[in-house]
Amino acid sequence: MNQNKNALLLLTGISLFMAACGTSKTGLITIQEQGSFAVGGKVIASPGTFDPYKPTPAGQTFHGDHAYVFYQIPPKARKYPLVMWHGIGQFSKTWETTPDGREGYQNIFLRRGFGVYVLDQPRRGNAGRSTAAGTINPTPDEQQWFGTFRVGIWPNYFEGVQFARDTATLNQYFRSMVPNVGPIDIGVTTDAAAALFQKIGPGVLVTHSHSGGMGWLTAIKNQNVKGIVAYEPGSGFLFPEGEVPAPIEMAGGQMAAVGVPMSQFMQLTKIPIIIYYGDFIPEKPSDNPGTDGWRARMVMARLWRDAVNRHGGDVTVVHLPEVGLKGNTHFPFSDLNNLQVADLMSKFLKDKKLD
Amino acid sequence: MNQNKNALLLLTGISLFMAACGTSKTGLITIQEQGSFAVGGKVIASPGTFDPYKPTPAGQTFHGDHAYVFYQIPPKARKYPLVMWHGIGQFSKTWETTPDGREGYQNIFLRRGFGVYVLDQPRRGNAGRSTAAGTINPTPDEQQWFGTFRVGIWPNYFEGVQFARDTATLNQYFRSMVPNVGPIDIGVTTDAAAALFQKIGPGVLVTHSHSGGMGWLTAIKNQNVKGIVAYEPGSGFLFPEGEVPAPIEMAGGQMAAVGVPMSQFMQLTKIPIIIYYGDFIPEKPSDNPGTDGWRARMVMARLWRDAVNRHGGDVTVVHLPEVGLKGNTHFPFSDLNNLQVADLMSKFLKDKKLD
Repeated sequence: MNQNKNALLLLTGISLFMAACGTSKTGLITIQEQGSFAVGGKVIASPGTFDPYKPTPAGQTFHGDHAYVFYQIPPKARKYPLVMWHGIGQFSKTWETTPDGREGYQNIFLRRGFGVYVLDQPRRGNAGRSTAAGTINPTPDEQQWFGTFRVGIWPNYFEGVQFARDTATLNQYFRSMVPNVGPIDIGVTTDAAAALFQKIGPGVLVTHSHSGGMGWLTAIKNQNVKGIVAYEPGSGFLFPEGEVPAPIEMAGGQMAAVGVPMSQFMQLTKIPIIIYYGDFIPEKPSDNPGTDGWRARMVMARLWRDAVNRHGGDVTVVHLPEVGLKGNTHFPFSDLNNLQVADLMSKFLKDKKLD
Repeated sequence: MNQNKNALLLLTGISLFMAACGTSKTGLITIQEQGSFAVGGKVIASPGTFDPYKPTPAGQTFHGDHAYVFYQIPPKARKYPLVMWHGIGQFSKTWETTPDGREGYQNIFLRRGFGVYVLDQPRRGNAGRSTAAGTINPTPDEQQWFGTFRVGIWPNYFEGVQFARDTATLNQYFRSMVPNVGPIDIGVTTDAAAALFQKIGPGVLVTHSHSGGMGWLTAIKNQNVKGIVAYEPGSGFLFPEGEVPAPIEMAGGQMAAVGVPMSQFMQLTKIPIIIYYGDFIPEKPSDNPGTDGWRARMVMARLWRDAVNRHGGDVTVVHLPEVGLKGNTHFPFSDLNNLQVADLMSKFLKDKKLD
């Protein structure tokens, strides 16, 4: 009895210590430094002389096209921080609290000891100061995203989908989008991302969907990108000029590849890259545009893997159902099984000595 | 010698403990919970039936006009969390890292044990999904803001201004703005802020500039607002109908008050409110529109204080130079002396039993 009591006291002591200092999954998060900054961008100016007493645009400047970054660094952080870049129509929220209120990759990898930088790309979200004009109309589009993001075929959820089925979750999900304040400009976005890696030094880039292709370009622009984890890259697969495959037909369009000079392409052979795709991607062409596009993109991703590896690279494509993770949508990192999805990423980082 | 050594060891031990578990100004930040969510807002819909195989806007929805909130709760948090609401053209960045790279109110008050919620108001920043259309032009305007925010009279800084004079600081300062994605709608913004207080329960609202007036309205809409700290409120002073003072003339315009029914006004007499204004506000009318507007607003704030207190309220107006804090701009909470500015706020919260 006394022994049990002592053991209990010891355990209580350990628990209290962990509660005070720990970084366990349910315990406290400890942060050595956190903050935010703008990075990259440009300055435009109106000609003339500024008159502070009768101000007009004359002689004034406009700083825009930067990315906005919020970062957190834990104590004794691992070797490389993670830079997390959202996909189309999204912003940093992608990596934060999940639509059903659980922890996303921001917290998960902070708890695992990584510095985490979440980015809003230029002309989106908190980086909304665009040097190009834009008109924004609130066009109802959410049922289509429900399909494109492979939650289901509206109004039905996919059987076994890793997505909570309550209305509060769907409400948060739909509100996690923001419009493009100005036109998407791949040069502008990748310049800003490259400027971020210039500022912070070596790190690992984690991309999603539309940022996948921009991620390859960023790695070409800045060699501080030491590895890439790409969730469901959706466009911009870069092949050497002369080796560009034919576009792949898909419901409602084509998936086309992009040619770049060999010298640029070869940068992508120098870092480990892993690509993940989730579930509900048809093997054969389908008339559902929500899922068929992902079939075409995964085919293209495998062609790209083969091209990079043929030139000496290290690209892996993982179709999650093939390694036992079923039911994932286009957002595996925020799906109900995101801790398991994160475990795969942790293993990749460890295997490639990126942690 | 030995005694000194022991003392040194003890101090080292204490330092290590504080480094591991502490929340001192330079030590670690510990967080029990952090995350983000959308709150409030509405849903618009296109008539018709959605066809997932041939999608058009027909039958689709659009969730918009919510606020976006990022929050952090320290362990053993103080009684009331702080909800921090930015001003005109700004977003949550207002409270984050200062333009010169020091800690802002988000970190300062987290370290002081408060839960901190930083908000992007509907149609701004990460809450950019607006149900009303908008057109955004990149109009050069920064030299005017430099004046309106009382950093100086471009290109000159005010003598003694609490603002770092390097170009990197100015670059970050100008990039901390974002456009309105849709028109500012006071009903929409205050509904979302009231919904936030409905969700999180009792708390203290910290406003800046344009959110000052919206803060009073939020407190009328939701009695979970238990106190307000308003930095340089700029518009929307609410008086009882029949007691509305005449507009105050100022360079380039007028500062007008707003009338509300007595029953609404009386809500504002039930909570402690403190208002701070910084330095470089002229005593007499000036032809510099950058500073003269603040003269008019501070005059109005004092009339408002008198009206609320006459009806039994508890409003204090503090002109910072009068209590010894000199050189503050329109952003006292991020100025070089922001720890002293924060100390005043801490004292208010303590005096009013809001901490």
